[in-house]
Amino acid sequence: MAVHLMRELDNLKKVSLTLAAMVEDNLRLAMKAVVERDEPLARKVIEADIEIDRQEVEVEEECLKILALYQPVAHDLRFIVAMLKINHDLERIGDLAVNIGERAVALAQRPSPTRDFHIQRLAEIAQTMVSRSLDALINQDAKLAREVWLSDNEVNQLNRDLLNEVEEEIERDPSQLHALLALTLISRTLERIADHATNISKGVIYMIDGDIVRHRSKFFRKKFAAEQAQGSGEPS
Amino acid sequence: MAVHLMRELDNLKKVSLTLAAMVEDNLRLAMKAVVERDEPLARKVIEADIEIDRQEVEVEEECLKILALYQPVAHDLRFIVAMLKINHDLERIGDLAVNIGERAVALAQRPSPTRDFHIQRLAEIAQTMVSRSLDALINQDAKLAREVWLSDNEVNQLNRDLLNEVEEEIERDPSQLHALLALTLISRTLERIADHATNISKGVIYMIDGDIVRHRSKFFRKKFAAEQAQGSGEPS
Repeated sequence: MAVHLMRELDNLKKVSLTLAAMVEDNLRLAMKAVVERDEPLARKVIEADIEIDRQEVEVEEECLKILALYQPVAHDLRFIVAMLKINHDLERIGDLAVNIGERAVALAQRPSPTRDFHIQRLAEIAQTMVSRSLDALINQDAKLAREVWLSDNEVNQLNRDLLNEVEEEIERDPSQLHALLALTLISRTLERIADHATNISKGVIYMIDGDIVRHRSKFFRKKFAAEQAQGSGEPS
Repeated sequence: MAVHLMRELDNLKKVSLTLAAMVEDNLRLAMKAVVERDEPLARKVIEADIEIDRQEVEVEEECLKILALYQPVAHDLRFIVAMLKINHDLERIGDLAVNIGERAVALAQRPSPTRDFHIQRLAEIAQTMVSRSLDALINQDAKLAREVWLSDNEVNQLNRDLLNEVEEEIERDPSQLHALLALTLISRTLERIADHATNISKGVIYMIDGDIVRHRSKFFRKKFAAEQAQGSGEPS
């Protein structure tokens, strides 16, 4: 059993990392389309999401298969539940890359704003957070996962700064309104992508030591322990 | 075993519905804070998220407990995996309600825009989608879940219309810029909430008949069947 389960868990990692690579690629291309005002590339990004959705389903079915066939417990069970959650986050990042692609189409069709503010810096940090959260997952590195989590503050601050600066720019030159609004929506979307990378990191931390979740649910653990003591929680 | 498992699944539904009710309430209060420019209420919404996060953990631990103790298969397993995903969506809706609360604070601190466009209509549809997706979950109603999914188009259209109208309004009267930008961000957030309600509905449909997922993964099912035929996919 153990060898088969290990092989299946390795396979699960493999299909999940394939999904992660697809999502990372598509996000990178979406930002390239924004920066280079490349409408055909933006449309490719939007289309690529079908494959990403398909891969997400494959990861989920792999999880279900392992749960059904091997009925893992303890660390292995927590690993699979974490993979299910991470899978969901990856798929959402994929959707957000599509949103950025749609904004890239809008940007390409109108006169560009005179500057892009620090949207590229924001994109770099968000992309780095996504790729580092996945490194943390592969290497089961809780320290790296915590670092990703901390970067989220910087992204939130950059997003707030960008919104303020864009407001000032619109006041200065209202003719750029449409393009600048598109930039604010891209900034907001990048901030949400960083949130998902943070979620993935939290999932990795939980997978490794379960600390945070345990900390947050003392009440439930007590209740569970009491139920087990009474025998009502045992399989029969 | 069956009776105990049934009782646990009922309990899982109960804790999940408690979470759903908390999220629905907080979203409703967040929109009330927006409409009535009520800063203290907005701050309450932001604080209430701690309890929502705690309840999310309780649902997840209930899922883990059932998986570990009862090792459910087939429909029960799919039900629990769907609950895990729905749990994640509910928690995200909770976070988005906090974002709306933050915008409500910003709105309350500045002069109001002369009108709110159709943000309340958008909020009503998004809230209805959330509550109907949960009704579909409780009553295992795939038809209702499909209706929720369809409503998502209306929300997307309303969000697009609002963005366009707000742009025109800013051009007409740039002094309202700050408040109107807050409105566009709320509109976008409501659109994302509707996306999560759509996800929940997809989860319900998958839970009931698995159609969509099966449809999307013929390749994988064939591969799985072939593995089973070779014996490599069997527990040993």
